[in-house]
Amino acid sequence: MSEAESSAQRAGNAAGASRGQGGVNGEGDVLGVVGELEALARIIPRLPSSEAAVLGPGDDAAVLAAPDSRYVVTTDMMIHGPDFRLAWSSMHDLGFKAAATNLSDVAAMGARPTALVIALAAPADTPLVDLEALADGLRDACVELAPGCGVVGGDLSVSPTLTIAVTAFGDLEGRDAVRRDGARVGDVIAVSGPLGRAARGLALLFERAVDDDGAPDAGAAARLRSEHPDAVSAQLAPRPPIADGVAAALAGATAMLDLSDGLALDARRIALASGVSLDLDAAAVCMAAGVDASLLPSVIVGGEDHSLLATFPPATAPGQSLPGGFRVIGRVVKPGGDGPALLVSGRVFSPRGGWDSFDEWTGDLG
Amino acid sequence: MSEAESSAQRAGNAAGASRGQGGVNGEGDVLGVVGELEALARIIPRLPSSEAAVLGPGDDAAVLAAPDSRYVVTTDMMIHGPDFRLAWSSMHDLGFKAAATNLSDVAAMGARPTALVIALAAPADTPLVDLEALADGLRDACVELAPGCGVVGGDLSVSPTLTIAVTAFGDLEGRDAVRRDGARVGDVIAVSGPLGRAARGLALLFERAVDDDGAPDAGAAARLRSEHPDAVSAQLAPRPPIADGVAAALAGATAMLDLSDGLALDARRIALASGVSLDLDAAAVCMAAGVDASLLPSVIVGGEDHSLLATFPPATAPGQSLPGGFRVIGRVVKPGGDGPALLVSGRVFSPRGGWDSFDEWTGDLG
Repeated sequence: MSEAESSAQRAGNAAGASRGQGGVNGEGDVLGVVGELEALARIIPRLPSSEAAVLGPGDDAAVLAAPDSRYVVTTDMMIHGPDFRLAWSSMHDLGFKAAATNLSDVAAMGARPTALVIALAAPADTPLVDLEALADGLRDACVELAPGCGVVGGDLSVSPTLTIAVTAFGDLEGRDAVRRDGARVGDVIAVSGPLGRAARGLALLFERAVDDDGAPDAGAAARLRSEHPDAVSAQLAPRPPIADGVAAALAGATAMLDLSDGLALDARRIALASGVSLDLDAAAVCMAAGVDASLLPSVIVGGEDHSLLATFPPATAPGQSLPGGFRVIGRVVKPGGDGPALLVSGRVFSPRGGWDSFDEWTGDLG
Repeated sequence: MSEAESSAQRAGNAAGASRGQGGVNGEGDVLGVVGELEALARIIPRLPSSEAAVLGPGDDAAVLAAPDSRYVVTTDMMIHGPDFRLAWSSMHDLGFKAAATNLSDVAAMGARPTALVIALAAPADTPLVDLEALADGLRDACVELAPGCGVVGGDLSVSPTLTIAVTAFGDLEGRDAVRRDGARVGDVIAVSGPLGRAARGLALLFERAVDDDGAPDAGAAARLRSEHPDAVSAQLAPRPPIADGVAAALAGATAMLDLSDGLALDARRIALASGVSLDLDAAAVCMAAGVDASLLPSVIVGGEDHSLLATFPPATAPGQSLPGGFRVIGRVVKPGGDGPALLVSGRVFSPRGGWDSFDEWTGDLG
């Protein structure tokens, strides 16, 4: 963590709050009172170290190893309001999801995630125990999904809006990056990880994790999560199949994407970038998603699964098994007269397909 | 730029705003109405490309070259309220400063900056012309301070709080990183870049760029900037001596830091990390800062210059010239009985020295 800008400490001091009024390392300590340095002293020991770190946190910058002279970089931000409700997500969930969604972007290049840097901004009255829980979520995501990956630096600030910006790094281990533009006619289309589950979780939350006035309700969310743990957790703390990114690359994947915006929208991205059409098999998609045909539309447009969508040379299947958790859900075909498109069982799928989350996600706080 | 989370578009749609009501590519377009994709289409062409990019923006992640099998990484966030006033900083200033302050952390490791990724969150009613101006500021900082460095990815979201998170990368070109813990007794202490100028600019802004009620005032700030361009610009759009980071490394610098929190605090960091004392020469500091002795205290504690503070082996001076813009301001000495410390002309400097900006910077918006 860089000490460069002690804006947390500044804001706390500016508020005229006196040091330690929350008790000595007590439960009541909040970010704006203890300041950035003490907060970091409590957070950093909870974070996993990176096996790629040549020089870890504590200087102006970290130094990371890039054994094959290249590295993969992606960044993504989660913001209170547009991206999450505090009545539904625990701080541990937020840390877990912030790491997982960035790790899946690294994995979707066929790379092994090596390290994260975290820029975290939280309201001055944020309890330090909440920041510790967020750090634990980051740690648990790294340990569970990408062993050896750790946090090599960051920045901690005060902001009225809880904001988590993660930048993630990966190692291609000598392989070519798996881009979105390499799908070829005849390739099989396959997916690893859930399909439509995170969107089902979100729909459940909007329908049932609210009080009588429709406002997000923490108690209702907890009950819902115990009744539908898979769907709700897929939304709040997704567990993408990170290791399958490298497995797909090793198996010769020709194109790959992280399914963040829904199968329809992301499959169309591969089609357009590659100059081919992608034909999804409706029955195979339902089987891969574990749902019956009536739920097909929601599975095809549901976003935020962060599963991996990849195309593989035809020799890879059938008969020959796909790597890891990948299941065949379609085939790459020649584009029709209207150019590259997404098809479902041979019929062109509406260009409006995809995760138009404005139907579900209002941007209000809660 | 990742397309992963179209939260800008979501929020715009959620607000029930209809597409295009601001006109066709018109001045009135705002982020929440046009959405992330169109905003990115207008921003990305303004950003400089990186000479280190093996694969630039447009996929799940970028791929960057690391010719010597290592890379330098740092991240820093700027937040409306704790870090800037919109009445004082233009959007171009914000882009410029966000890049410059991260580039200086890369430079302070002795590395050449190669690339940035930007996570930007802005209110839904932010005009696209403001985002374009911010992009132009990022571009101008890269072009002026670190030619060849460019933007390889990012994320654009809607947030109630304007937030700019930059992660910067650098190339050590086969050299060891210049850490903070390498200063040795007998080394000379030198600085490149202004001393105390950004703090003087901030003091001027708080004193004179306000209206009769003390609220930040854009007109007064513009007048002040034309009267005191150096000090005000040092605060709002600093131009750190980025190239001198590599120059210092090549000249054998034993320790180096970016002066973000003030000479006293950052010099003490080198002293503590290196197990030595740093003795600043008051007259040399004043000469380097271009001020008379009465201003010494403010020069020593003033922060945010983002100048480079380095130590060099004694053979480097006197007689032998220091690299780039470095000027000698003191000498590394053996720690006294109380251990490593900061001295000014032989006397221990108060441990409270440093940039306690709560005196100046209240965290209010404006």
